[in-house]
Amino acid sequence: MALVVQKYGGSSVADAESIKRVAKRIAETKRAGHDVVVVVSAMGDTTDELIDLAQQVTPLPPQREMDILLTAGERISMSLLAMAINNLGVKAKSFTGQQAGVITDAVHGKAHIVDVVPHRIRETVEKGSVAIVAGFQGVTQSTNDVTTLGRGGSDTTAVALAAGLSADVCEIYTDVDGVFTADPRIVPTARKIDHISYEEMLDMAASGAKVLVLRCVEYARRYGVPIHVRSSFSTKAGTIVSNDARSVPNVPQQAPGSPAGNEAEVIMEAPIISGVAHDRSEAKITVVGVPDVPGTAARIFEVVAGAGANIDMIVQNVSVAATGLTDISFTLPMDDGALATTALDAVREEIGFASLQYDDQIGKVSLIGAGMKSSPGVSAQLFGALRDAGINIEMISTSEIRISVVTRADSLDDAVRAIHTAFELDGESEAVVYAGTGR
Amino acid sequence: MALVVQKYGGSSVADAESIKRVAKRIAETKRAGHDVVVVVSAMGDTTDELIDLAQQVTPLPPQREMDILLTAGERISMSLLAMAINNLGVKAKSFTGQQAGVITDAVHGKAHIVDVVPHRIRETVEKGSVAIVAGFQGVTQSTNDVTTLGRGGSDTTAVALAAGLSADVCEIYTDVDGVFTADPRIVPTARKIDHISYEEMLDMAASGAKVLVLRCVEYARRYGVPIHVRSSFSTKAGTIVSNDARSVPNVPQQAPGSPAGNEAEVIMEAPIISGVAHDRSEAKITVVGVPDVPGTAARIFEVVAGAGANIDMIVQNVSVAATGLTDISFTLPMDDGALATTALDAVREEIGFASLQYDDQIGKVSLIGAGMKSSPGVSAQLFGALRDAGINIEMISTSEIRISVVTRADSLDDAVRAIHTAFELDGESEAVVYAGTGR
Repeated sequence: MALVVQKYGGSSVADAESIKRVAKRIAETKRAGHDVVVVVSAMGDTTDELIDLAQQVTPLPPQREMDILLTAGERISMSLLAMAINNLGVKAKSFTGQQAGVITDAVHGKAHIVDVVPHRIRETVEKGSVAIVAGFQGVTQSTNDVTTLGRGGSDTTAVALAAGLSADVCEIYTDVDGVFTADPRIVPTARKIDHISYEEMLDMAASGAKVLVLRCVEYARRYGVPIHVRSSFSTKAGTIVSNDARSVPNVPQQAPGSPAGNEAEVIMEAPIISGVAHDRSEAKITVVGVPDVPGTAARIFEVVAGAGANIDMIVQNVSVAATGLTDISFTLPMDDGALATTALDAVREEIGFASLQYDDQIGKVSLIGAGMKSSPGVSAQLFGALRDAGINIEMISTSEIRISVVTRADSLDDAVRAIHTAFELDGESEAVVYAGTGR
Repeated sequence: MALVVQKYGGSSVADAESIKRVAKRIAETKRAGHDVVVVVSAMGDTTDELIDLAQQVTPLPPQREMDILLTAGERISMSLLAMAINNLGVKAKSFTGQQAGVITDAVHGKAHIVDVVPHRIRETVEKGSVAIVAGFQGVTQSTNDVTTLGRGGSDTTAVALAAGLSADVCEIYTDVDGVFTADPRIVPTARKIDHISYEEMLDMAASGAKVLVLRCVEYARRYGVPIHVRSSFSTKAGTIVSNDARSVPNVPQQAPGSPAGNEAEVIMEAPIISGVAHDRSEAKITVVGVPDVPGTAARIFEVVAGAGANIDMIVQNVSVAATGLTDISFTLPMDDGALATTALDAVREEIGFASLQYDDQIGKVSLIGAGMKSSPGVSAQLFGALRDAGINIEMISTSEIRISVVTRADSLDDAVRAIHTAFELDGESEAVVYAGTGR
């Protein structure tokens, strides 16, 4: 018997039928003898519909009011889910972020969790009920104001609650079977990863893998919460994210008669290379003709950071001795592109560079693996695979467990496939993709 | 300058355009120098849609979860309204029932307010903002659980907040111009009442006038909160409910150039008779052949009350000496009809009555007026008017300020008109009705 936190996203509770299906799954986990705490997102398109309503009223809604508006979505899904579970003869009660003790800072729209005080959740579970908690939301301690956590907020709520409750596992239900060695829509032979460390998962997420958001993995790593990413459409074991997979309970959720999950036996066979991630959401800015004097690069990135843009990769060309000028390129989220170029343009004379180039037709492919540092041939093998596929490399960046390269956007899929094959990640059969979004 | 509580119902905030219209009205009140607290219901059909969702999930939703679900509706309307007001350059913040300090008992679905602790509302108003408060909802003090107040809950929230804040007036916005001497859909010449006492308004509400619910008037009377019932579609003064109309501030809300409201001059001309109310929602049960021995009537009403049915009027026929049997008739809400007949049928042998008759084709018309007790001719005049109109009276009940009679349902409209004319309540022009519901 274990304490299990389960998180279901908006597509898993999109309508009354889906809610009843999820309720059945939760009731089965409870009847198998486990204590269950569930974190749930808003139903399907609810959040988009609420945003649309707000835009009909005002072009610039105050963020505090926007948070109150959006949290209505989870209020609806959580109470309906509690009703559906009760209807199956299993006791369940729903709780807002505030009632569940999710305390955040006061940054409306993208608040950070500062503490989790889940007295009521613990009490509810101890009394034999399932506790349903609204994802994505919290409350400020000082003013008792409602906040939302921003992108990936419900996953983060689930991990934070699992940490606060010392849960045995945090199960993140999604519409794919787990974390794959590459996006199955690009690489049909991609294999599901049975086990991956926090560090590798962090690099996968940071490199564009969308199945888990970065902040959720960071939280899990900090508090040592084992995550089990699995499909809400099947009973198969998914991907365990932890540094010691054998400590994770194998929560039985298979239909009667089907074999139990077997991740515990498989994980020790994990390859050195975990997988290939890709990202199409970045753009490249090149600052052309920068005087190659000390402090110039620092000033450029100071300006970009001051504009609120997040820089990813940086490449500085070798300075041309004759001119004393160099080019500096960096990548950043496309959404920050306008901010950064405007800010840099304002200091062109001060810094003395010649021009700015903005390019959003790039793609980034990353190879992630814990064994990379101790295998010096990995980079060479990767570059060779791209060369053989005729793909040009524009930028390179490496860390202890990751190599990322920037290519033209229209070469990205080929690059992902070439690397996936070169590192022998291809499985024997095609991966099953349940929905178009890959989430 | 006054502190004004304004309440807007669901039809006043049915869509984005309506919300913007209401926001404009609130901003005008604020700009006229008043402090404004607004209580708002859920948008249009939201509540019905949420109930429908719940029924898709389970036939018997736990009431606690139902309350959480339904309160999502006000969360949406209140935040959108706050956004719309901010968009007009007037500061506004929205608050849940809990944040506004609306403390209730734990009777989910029809909770009663036990206390109002509006610290945050007062603080918000003192800082120059409009405070928007979710109607219909509160929170239990012991468990911090969300509750709803049941029918007329938003009106009651508004009056309770007005009491807690010692507001100068509680304005209830609706889609009619105020309280009328009769339902304008039945009596086109019905006149708007400029001023009515709490006691008369209580009797109007108890007799079927739908513009204010009974519990809201009861609350206002207990705490001496002046209510101003007025239309959200016009700027005219409506109906003041209070025992001293001259103490009510005349909050200017007219469009620039239009004359100010003038209820203060008119109220002293109020007629002895306030108005005619009617009710189609009751049924009549007749217990036929009851042994006329002491305690039988008591036992009958004990059984009915034990079934949870609310009895309104009671008539006991004169006992026929030869048989020692009598008939007892009473009226009750149609919704309670099945409960009461089932309960009575179960004790037929014990009580020894012959049969039960159930009749839901009745109507009740009531004449309300503070001067009635001191005018003994009123009853005679009423019965005469009905006789002249050829309408049969089935039951009669009177109080100090009310006479009610039961007629056939299909005679009810004629009865309302006959009484309205007989007591010279007809105005010179036709009343304006803005919407079909009369709410």
